[in-house]
Amino acid sequence: MIKFVRNRASQLLLKESGKNYVVPKNVSSLLIDQGYVQQSSSGVFQLLPLGLRVMDNISNIVHQELAGLGAIRVSLASLSAKAVWQQSKRWEKMGSEMLHIRDRAQRDYCLCPTHEEEMTRMVANVFHSSKQLPISVYQIGSKYRDEARPRGGLLRAKEFLMMDLYTYDATKEAAEKTYERVFQSFHRIFRAIGLPYTVAEAQQGTMGGAYSHEFHYLNEVGEDVVLRCPQCLHAANTDAYHGSIDKCVHCGGELLQQKCIEVGHTFNLGQTYTRPFQLCLSNGDALYMNSYGIGISRLLAAVAHMTHDEKGLVWPTAIAPWKIIILPASDSKIPDAEALYDSLAQTFGANNILLDDRGHKSYGRKIRDAELIGFPFIITVGESYTRDGSFDVLARASNTRYKLKAAQLHTVVSGNFA
Amino acid sequence: MIKFVRNRASQLLLKESGKNYVVPKNVSSLLIDQGYVQQSSSGVFQLLPLGLRVMDNISNIVHQELAGLGAIRVSLASLSAKAVWQQSKRWEKMGSEMLHIRDRAQRDYCLCPTHEEEMTRMVANVFHSSKQLPISVYQIGSKYRDEARPRGGLLRAKEFLMMDLYTYDATKEAAEKTYERVFQSFHRIFRAIGLPYTVAEAQQGTMGGAYSHEFHYLNEVGEDVVLRCPQCLHAANTDAYHGSIDKCVHCGGELLQQKCIEVGHTFNLGQTYTRPFQLCLSNGDALYMNSYGIGISRLLAAVAHMTHDEKGLVWPTAIAPWKIIILPASDSKIPDAEALYDSLAQTFGANNILLDDRGHKSYGRKIRDAELIGFPFIITVGESYTRDGSFDVLARASNTRYKLKAAQLHTVVSGNFA
Repeated sequence: MIKFVRNRASQLLLKESGKNYVVPKNVSSLLIDQGYVQQSSSGVFQLLPLGLRVMDNISNIVHQELAGLGAIRVSLASLSAKAVWQQSKRWEKMGSEMLHIRDRAQRDYCLCPTHEEEMTRMVANVFHSSKQLPISVYQIGSKYRDEARPRGGLLRAKEFLMMDLYTYDATKEAAEKTYERVFQSFHRIFRAIGLPYTVAEAQQGTMGGAYSHEFHYLNEVGEDVVLRCPQCLHAANTDAYHGSIDKCVHCGGELLQQKCIEVGHTFNLGQTYTRPFQLCLSNGDALYMNSYGIGISRLLAAVAHMTHDEKGLVWPTAIAPWKIIILPASDSKIPDAEALYDSLAQTFGANNILLDDRGHKSYGRKIRDAELIGFPFIITVGESYTRDGSFDVLARASNTRYKLKAAQLHTVVSGNFA
Repeated sequence: MIKFVRNRASQLLLKESGKNYVVPKNVSSLLIDQGYVQQSSSGVFQLLPLGLRVMDNISNIVHQELAGLGAIRVSLASLSAKAVWQQSKRWEKMGSEMLHIRDRAQRDYCLCPTHEEEMTRMVANVFHSSKQLPISVYQIGSKYRDEARPRGGLLRAKEFLMMDLYTYDATKEAAEKTYERVFQSFHRIFRAIGLPYTVAEAQQGTMGGAYSHEFHYLNEVGEDVVLRCPQCLHAANTDAYHGSIDKCVHCGGELLQQKCIEVGHTFNLGQTYTRPFQLCLSNGDALYMNSYGIGISRLLAAVAHMTHDEKGLVWPTAIAPWKIIILPASDSKIPDAEALYDSLAQTFGANNILLDDRGHKSYGRKIRDAELIGFPFIITVGESYTRDGSFDVLARASNTRYKLKAAQLHTVVSGNFA
């Protein structure tokens, strides 16, 4: 008895990319062509089922890690009153990056580009005892920035999905320990996604505070530049580099300049926000605050840039829209493909498997689409499955082919790019 | 070996409501006092952990039902360009309810009050064959309306959470069948939430189209008025009533006028949106569209209004922030309470159970808080648990008390308000 709904490609609103489709050099176009996202206007995107699933997978890695950290989830509004931003003096400081709104009563709001102000206000409302500390609160939700030149699709969008975490401690020292703890948590999140990344010292910009770090993917499409010392491994954003940009300030080694995409940022903020919003201990001392962000929608685009190849997208198993796609070699093999689906669902979970049931598509087209979309494991169900239960597996990232039975698949999936 | 994180009251950012706290008559104030939500400005709310969990539980009921219906999930942006709304002629029609934004390039946007336009545009982009029909797409996300008088907390907010579903069919008749199918789905969703509701014929307002129905909770705080015939059970919103408001148009029976809170709305829209956005079959005929909404954040407030009593909130088990709260009778009983937690987690799932570990609170205060917050089942772990494994259970809705062992709890939880 089947207790799940089989995921079917026919229900995915997949785009039809045409027989003579050439994989575009531009990864944002590739994501649009393959039905991950659509652009509704400059810098504004709609998430289709494939894109939403990648986003959910990234979010779930983050939720799981932050639950282990004891952080609690909240959800703040995107509308925020002008008076709140005047209190922190950021209404002006944010400049033209901030999107403004006036309601029918002529009250001014912004669409939050970040939530330091509102979160600190919110915590101040419930804080009554130092026994509650440390407080760690986070959300995953939309942020808004009026980019001068939206570009790179989800890499720099007006409306984007972000995880933002805020921690509050009694002392500077406790806040530094918390910073270190969350910093390690970020390392685990980026390791779980499965791609090499770099951490660099960074500037605070409009955020204020004492120090900050950025998490980067090294990639030519990135707009940031980090200086890295191959000898002592020190790295810093060029904006934050205090010495010559040729020699490492730590060891004198020769620095490398590399373009990169910023995907995470951690800030030690001190009392910058807790003072104006009077989030204080009973003795009147303001709490010490840190804030931490991961660009969830930017990560989707950044990973696509990092891993695509000449055949299309290539997702790391951890965040792929589906880990496994099953293709019947012909329509007559659909019942066999369904049987295999149900059997693999026991081991891998029905929600990690997709069945390409599009009857009007040739097998050749289906396998090409599966490669373009970037499913990590592409399984073909043909004659041999009917005969002896074996099927063909293509591991997308390594372009390795296997002939396997169901019991053997687990080894391949967990050994390959998992 | 424990494989889960125990949910602890100390991590909830609970509000402290003071010894002499009197339960307010105003349910919105009660939700704020008990730490479900905070108001950040007029009509704008922040969701604290308790409120977010109720919202998630409602959302999960909806997701599950719509997955069974074969609807697919997408996520559209909140920013939407003026040109899109001019195409459907709703930029003007929406009037002062619409929140407008101008970006640095002087381009005009609105914050979407609903998504008929953007969804139809999006589907038009991926629609290429009648084999894809029927198409059902939905999302759960923020909507924005510049209410003249935000009131009743989440009942009428500027920024609110909504589920919106859109279906597309080839013919008028197919669209009517789909309407009926989703209509039945809505009935299952409202039955799953567990409160009596009414369905009424309704007007289309700015939505256009052929016909529509509203789902209502009958409640004095509501702003809608339905006319109900107790004889033939016909019901309609007063706005939509075509006959005398005293006599039933169907059977001549005497009509009752009742105030109610609208929590769901279904619209048969015909080709109102598919024509301007050219979502057409290959023969040029526009598709037939329906749209369907459930006010997720309004439901939270509406249910609170429907079920609260003189001791505080009372949640139906299906959507309660936690189904079960465990209170140690004293601090020395915390290890026993944790043991019971772990044992009940096997049956009920760790995520449905909360442990009140707030060491600085007296037992009397804990039980009062548990009643105020409205957990369906309040368990006290005292001497008898140490002695023979039995504990006291208070079923909040019926105010019934039980003395039970772990194996018996399931019967009570599933029999009571489940």
